[in-house]
Amino acid sequence: MTTQPTHERLLQWLQDAYAMEQEAETLLTAMGGRLEHYGELRARIEQHVGETKAQAEKLKRCIEHLGGSTPAVKGMIATMMAGMHAAGNAMMSDEVAKGVGISYAFEHMEIATYRALVIAAQEAGRDDIADICGEILQEEIAMADWLLDHQEAVIMTFLRREAEAGVTAKR
Amino acid sequence: MTTQPTHERLLQWLQDAYAMEQEAETLLTAMGGRLEHYGELRARIEQHVGETKAQAEKLKRCIEHLGGSTPAVKGMIATMMAGMHAAGNAMMSDEVAKGVGISYAFEHMEIATYRALVIAAQEAGRDDIADICGEILQEEIAMADWLLDHQEAVIMTFLRREAEAGVTAKR
Repeated sequence: MTTQPTHERLLQWLQDAYAMEQEAETLLTAMGGRLEHYGELRARIEQHVGETKAQAEKLKRCIEHLGGSTPAVKGMIATMMAGMHAAGNAMMSDEVAKGVGISYAFEHMEIATYRALVIAAQEAGRDDIADICGEILQEEIAMADWLLDHQEAVIMTFLRREAEAGVTAKR
Repeated sequence: MTTQPTHERLLQWLQDAYAMEQEAETLLTAMGGRLEHYGELRARIEQHVGETKAQAEKLKRCIEHLGGSTPAVKGMIATMMAGMHAAGNAMMSDEVAKGVGISYAFEHMEIATYRALVIAAQEAGRDDIADICGEILQEEIAMADWLLDHQEAVIMTFLRREAEAGVTAKR
């Protein structure tokens, strides 16, 4: 089943994922750095920035194993992610609430991407790359689960700070 | 606990959700309409377009109950969604694979949005609105679960069609 189109598609999807992780690093760094009153969220985001950098390095090695190079120009997905990034960074009055939603959506884009990559790598006969993408997938699922588990507390904190005079709620 | 800021925030988030559902309808209609070789996916998307229209109507009534009006100008989230929409509609060689990922991410933006709305409605003492948002939330979770359950089949079909000469894989 290791047909040439499957090999090329695997390489293309690894390059797309690499561009996506570059955008993830930008998004998460900007979001984490702005949070002042949501310490637990900030700490988890900072942890995930570290994971994201390591994921990009792993993808780079996979791309090189397949004889490709890491993309200098951002692809379609990165363009979309830039839109999410811009929205996330905007001076919204409910920045932290929107940020959690945007991050949660972003994590599911990543989950879908790595699920597809595991399948593509297996189809191309590259179980080594499937294993690496499977490991990254577990980190993305863990981050998505964390955001889901902590969203209610963030929203409650936001709403109660906003209802209180003289305190900053949005970040 | 029904402070004025909480009421205003609930109204704002309902208006954001309304704009998001308008964009969802545009995205899903465009995506479903282009699919030729993925009949089950197309049918589920078309079903969700119907759900999405009904959700927008429900949100409109909630907004009017709170004395607000539905937004004519799109907000920050809709701007972000337009970026996803543009990416989804682009002439990508792997349109169906990316489309599933984008839809899956979009559903999770919606899930996070309605989870926040349920909390905000409860905090504002509007259990009627919390119930409606809770119903919409279940429809979004069902769509997200469907996409997760069917992604592997879509990706496998895509990769095998792409490896085969003379057939269209991308939509």
